[in-house]
Amino acid sequence: MMLIRPARGMRDFLPEDVRRRDYAVSVIRDVYERYGFEPLETPAAENLETLLGKYGEESNKLIFKILKRGEHEASGQADLALRYDLTVPLARVVAEHHAELPRFFKRYQIQPVWRADRPARGRFREFYQCDIDAIGSKALVVEIELCAAVSDVFKTLGFSDFVIRLNHRQVLTALLDLSGFARDQHQAVLIALDKLDKIGEEGVREDLGARGLTPHTVQAFLALFGKVGRLLEENVGESRTGSQLNQALLLHLQDFVGQHEEGARAVAEMGQILELANATAAEARISIDPSLARGLSYYTGAIMEISAPGSAGSLGGGGRYDNLIGMFLGREVPACGFSLGLERILGLMDERQMFPSDVHEAPAQVMVVLWSAASTRESLELATDLRAAGLRVDVYPEPEGVGKQFKYAARRGVAAVVLVGDQERALGQVAVKTLSTGEQVAVPRDRLVETIRTKLAGTRAQSIAVTHDS
Amino acid sequence: MMLIRPARGMRDFLPEDVRRRDYAVSVIRDVYERYGFEPLETPAAENLETLLGKYGEESNKLIFKILKRGEHEASGQADLALRYDLTVPLARVVAEHHAELPRFFKRYQIQPVWRADRPARGRFREFYQCDIDAIGSKALVVEIELCAAVSDVFKTLGFSDFVIRLNHRQVLTALLDLSGFARDQHQAVLIALDKLDKIGEEGVREDLGARGLTPHTVQAFLALFGKVGRLLEENVGESRTGSQLNQALLLHLQDFVGQHEEGARAVAEMGQILELANATAAEARISIDPSLARGLSYYTGAIMEISAPGSAGSLGGGGRYDNLIGMFLGREVPACGFSLGLERILGLMDERQMFPSDVHEAPAQVMVVLWSAASTRESLELATDLRAAGLRVDVYPEPEGVGKQFKYAARRGVAAVVLVGDQERALGQVAVKTLSTGEQVAVPRDRLVETIRTKLAGTRAQSIAVTHDS
Repeated sequence: MMLIRPARGMRDFLPEDVRRRDYAVSVIRDVYERYGFEPLETPAAENLETLLGKYGEESNKLIFKILKRGEHEASGQADLALRYDLTVPLARVVAEHHAELPRFFKRYQIQPVWRADRPARGRFREFYQCDIDAIGSKALVVEIELCAAVSDVFKTLGFSDFVIRLNHRQVLTALLDLSGFARDQHQAVLIALDKLDKIGEEGVREDLGARGLTPHTVQAFLALFGKVGRLLEENVGESRTGSQLNQALLLHLQDFVGQHEEGARAVAEMGQILELANATAAEARISIDPSLARGLSYYTGAIMEISAPGSAGSLGGGGRYDNLIGMFLGREVPACGFSLGLERILGLMDERQMFPSDVHEAPAQVMVVLWSAASTRESLELATDLRAAGLRVDVYPEPEGVGKQFKYAARRGVAAVVLVGDQERALGQVAVKTLSTGEQVAVPRDRLVETIRTKLAGTRAQSIAVTHDS
Repeated sequence: MMLIRPARGMRDFLPEDVRRRDYAVSVIRDVYERYGFEPLETPAAENLETLLGKYGEESNKLIFKILKRGEHEASGQADLALRYDLTVPLARVVAEHHAELPRFFKRYQIQPVWRADRPARGRFREFYQCDIDAIGSKALVVEIELCAAVSDVFKTLGFSDFVIRLNHRQVLTALLDLSGFARDQHQAVLIALDKLDKIGEEGVREDLGARGLTPHTVQAFLALFGKVGRLLEENVGESRTGSQLNQALLLHLQDFVGQHEEGARAVAEMGQILELANATAAEARISIDPSLARGLSYYTGAIMEISAPGSAGSLGGGGRYDNLIGMFLGREVPACGFSLGLERILGLMDERQMFPSDVHEAPAQVMVVLWSAASTRESLELATDLRAAGLRVDVYPEPEGVGKQFKYAARRGVAAVVLVGDQERALGQVAVKTLSTGEQVAVPRDRLVETIRTKLAGTRAQSIAVTHDS
């Protein structure tokens, strides 16, 4: 017998799974469109050289590579690779189409990406990202609108307890400069810092020591974060509001990096984002977090992560990346984006039972019974009429006992069953049975559609019937 | 400068492309659901062994293979492969989940597949298939419902001239048996026959000769198709209706294969499908075509292809495959499916200008002008209110000249522009300019949403506003 499992870390989605995913995606898409973002789609596979060197060394190892084909297959070499995120393909598209795209190109993209990570709870090798990016402006309005849009997504999905953590790569650069790290060491430290949550201060120290970084420098850097940690504890102890805590953290960051020009400017930017976000759906949702690093190497400005209690890791993140598009186009194009992870959002919605009940739709509203092989034409005609009226209709394919067919319909959650037995045929009638009540009526053939509509209006399928009945 | 093109044979979809694709997909999905099909999704990558040996030799060469990772990458071996169609993954899923799936599992699946074919007009290396399959019944109701559903799709999209060609693998098997081909030669002949349209009778003869098949046998087989061809010409000459031609073809096929038991049964099945399809949306759409072969090796019964004048190849096809699921499950499970090719349907719709005008939506209905850097908060607040009312709203990110901002909005197709200048601010008002007419009014801040709604109702954006305003 053959292997019947999907590939490791990848999943099949059965009908109920797809319906839930489609519900969340439709909410996300609808909100993104309200913020003026337009849809973009790119191929699953990119030329290998498009992806290499964009994400940093650790990520390069996680890229799925596609073998050359035909006579070149035996070389064992790859020329294509599966999309690793939606940002690098966007940068490529913007470079290719920059002449025809609007000056401010705001796109959303909801597609799968593939990473050869070790599978774990909430971590898959094929997963969907729901991205928004705004290209062409360095104005902070962009960062604020991105935070507003993702906040609106979470509110519309029914989350009330999400938080957007905010930091700035230039603040981190300033802290690293001031601690004494050389610039070419920064990326390694940021990747280690990104794991602070998981491996703790001691873990970060070991990780950086193993990479040959000076213990003294590492110590100076971690001491800064120790101060931040104590500050957070103190402020929680004094039960300050989030806004007061944010202000306190900004002041301390200003103290730390005040003498570093880019650092000081970055702290000021964070202050502005915080303040102006209060005019949007992101009001009171943003928390300054100086330890937020984001692993990917392409960020250059503000960085953000969104999370909610109980989720396996963050639910999304993003930031400003003003140099990436320039790698393709040869001139700088400012850009900033936010990516939501669909699987973790769905996982949390599932745990919290946040899906509306009408997402769990039955496959059909009506089932037509097949009375006998000889009445196949009649069954098909009934189904044709009901479908022409916009109803979701199934036809039982085999001429088996009526009791068996009724049971099947009931198990499938069908609201009404339709049949023409010998008696109904003689009278030009059709029998309609409502499965929830067991009630059965016989109606003239030409009143079937109207009768079914009335019956469905009395069941929970009502909203579905109306949706399809346009 | 880096490569900025997508991978060979693959495409980026800019916003207008995505909107057209989404329109067609939503029609297809809606029709499929009216026929009682449920959504399924499977991973882009499958274990290599899942795909190998299912499609025939020619197809195996076109599978994109994924290199092993980490320490195994250097081996040059592949362990995964990109989905080649949606049928084999379905067979795997049915085998894995057979205990929990309903007895008659009807699923639709709309996802991309990848084939390393030489790119040509209407032929890409990444393309979407829109499949329906019904698992668990050998009844012909299944074939008929599939033809009805795809006919309904084409009618709903606005096609009036499509045809479904129908043949039967058992009829072909009978013809091949009676011509004297050994069973292990059948697949090769079917693949050659599949090209009859493109390479003509002489081409097929050469192709089969090159494969070492007996010229006499090839001649006997092609003579049968010669007869069919003459029959078709005669009947067109006598201007018979499609129905009369179908009946004539069935009679002749019956003559050819009458003494072959499975062949005779297959001809009778085609007759039943033809007759009963007239009770559905497939009425008068089916044409018997004895030369239809379908390249894939897994078909066992009726086979179908749908086409319309002017399309680059067929627009979709399918058939019965009663043995494929058994390859995974170890026991026979009957199955039949139909797959539509999204790209070719879209290509033809594009040539014929069949997209409704509201598919070409502007990215936003309203744009908020950024009067000055100091008024950023005010602009964000206006946008927040308008979006909360369900409108699609953009905010201009840079505090540039108002004229420049207006021009940008007009070029983007935005219906109305909103701004608060110094004068409006002093009066607690907001200015609303309708770009199509140039008309500008100032309204109190608290009447903004209502005013915009009235303005939009007067533009072609009306339907969009109503959709989002629920």
